[in-house]
Amino acid sequence: MNLPEYLRECAALIDAALDEYLPPADAPPPLLHEAMRYSVFAGGKRLRPILTLAAAEAVGGNRLAALPAACAIELIHTYSLIHDDLPAMDNDDYRRGKPTNHKVYGEAVAILAGDALLTYAFELLARTGGSSEPESATALVVLREVAAAAGPAGLVAGQVLDIASEGKTIGAETLDYIHTHKTGALFRAAVRAGARLGGASPEQLAALTRYAEQLGLCFQITDDILDVSGDAAKLGKRVRKDDEKHKNTYPAYYGLPAAVAKARAAADAALAALRETDGEFAVLAALALFIVQRDK
Amino acid sequence: MNLPEYLRECAALIDAALDEYLPPADAPPPLLHEAMRYSVFAGGKRLRPILTLAAAEAVGGNRLAALPAACAIELIHTYSLIHDDLPAMDNDDYRRGKPTNHKVYGEAVAILAGDALLTYAFELLARTGGSSEPESATALVVLREVAAAAGPAGLVAGQVLDIASEGKTIGAETLDYIHTHKTGALFRAAVRAGARLGGASPEQLAALTRYAEQLGLCFQITDDILDVSGDAAKLGKRVRKDDEKHKNTYPAYYGLPAAVAKARAAADAALAALRETDGEFAVLAALALFIVQRDK
Repeated sequence: MNLPEYLRECAALIDAALDEYLPPADAPPPLLHEAMRYSVFAGGKRLRPILTLAAAEAVGGNRLAALPAACAIELIHTYSLIHDDLPAMDNDDYRRGKPTNHKVYGEAVAILAGDALLTYAFELLARTGGSSEPESATALVVLREVAAAAGPAGLVAGQVLDIASEGKTIGAETLDYIHTHKTGALFRAAVRAGARLGGASPEQLAALTRYAEQLGLCFQITDDILDVSGDAAKLGKRVRKDDEKHKNTYPAYYGLPAAVAKARAAADAALAALRETDGEFAVLAALALFIVQRDK
Repeated sequence: MNLPEYLRECAALIDAALDEYLPPADAPPPLLHEAMRYSVFAGGKRLRPILTLAAAEAVGGNRLAALPAACAIELIHTYSLIHDDLPAMDNDDYRRGKPTNHKVYGEAVAILAGDALLTYAFELLARTGGSSEPESATALVVLREVAAAAGPAGLVAGQVLDIASEGKTIGAETLDYIHTHKTGALFRAAVRAGARLGGASPEQLAALTRYAEQLGLCFQITDDILDVSGDAAKLGKRVRKDDEKHKNTYPAYYGLPAAVAKARAAADAALAALRETDGEFAVLAALALFIVQRDK
């Protein structure tokens, strides 16, 4: 199994599908559709949708059946970045080496482009169902889980607490709460959506859920570590901005060496989860190693 | 049929259901849930969800079957008001006689409360399905239509064009585009959701769709008229602010008498649509008259 090749192949499939699913850039009103597409095609790694496709394949499913859901999850991720970058939130000017959405289109359009991507994601998820009735029932379950992961008990909860905790001293529990919600919930939903659409058994779904939770934690800790020790040119964004903003991060709380150890432990736990059940887990295992070793 | 009684009864049912469906105000993080509830329970007329319940009943369905969808549509309406009121958009300090969400909770939390309400609406819509498979298929169709009405081809498109057109001279076509998208789309989706969940025939669905389109137009024109000639105390918001902002409205474009005539014509067209098919349309007919005659 050649992971870089697999990642390239899946990312190309996802990019093509996003281009097909999204209304064209000249759909009315063009300003909105340009703004939506600007951030969707701003060079994201497509990690979450790749996880959806890989999870579907790992349990013997077809990646194409999981493609609309995978794209919907990427749209939700993109909306969350546009809103996070707003002046009222993290006030970031650059993302992935490009000016953030509101720097290009203004705050009003950036807020609305985010709203539109979030809404369109659910329209796309509702298309997953196909025409047969058992498929509709699965599509609804997947949609419900993705909405729960993105909503007030998931991603938005994490973001609210993250903002409310800036510059404050918080405990390890709050730090974990912020990250399991802000990042972990959507990773978990991405993997579970793929597993469900791929026809996972209850045992497979449970093991893949544990895998996803550890993977999300590993991703967030490495993200924090890269902000401290990473290369701005590779990352395409300013580094050391967490520290400037007194953000609560794993390296700030535990120190860099302990944070690195925690990221490795999470990757190991993700790999261990895969050994609890049957499936074709080579790609998912390689992804865990890729995430803990990444430099961007 | 006593309309004021019917409206009170439905609004009470919707308020109770919203209170039950939404996470409690002290759910973590409380700041988010307080902010969400602040705007949901800020004294809205519940017109859209009432239309959903009334449409379900008009075609012989049970209003309780349409209740989660009705509440979801009200949450989408509420999110759109919170985001519309933001400084980057309409910059309004008061709504329904109370300080707007961002005046109370700050811009970051207001944006996130809106995001959370929008996301939660889809979680609620995905719960509509019940356990039987034909119900799942209907729930998916309803969800898809509501998402389309709220998204980049619906409400958000109208809002983008509204903002982009402020202070500019636009044609009648653009004025109609803004209002059919910003207001009309969600009215239409509210009625169609109720009709579908109530088991409407294709003829009933088509007639109710025409009813809803005319009703939405009538509502928007009367809204514009009330901004010109209404009573701020009754409305709970500043009047004549459209004019200050050089908003494109029906009275500004056509003059007040012609706008009043247009609102009446739309109400008449809504009533005519109801005569095209069979059903128990007393409530829907009374609602059209109520909307064209309202003073708040």
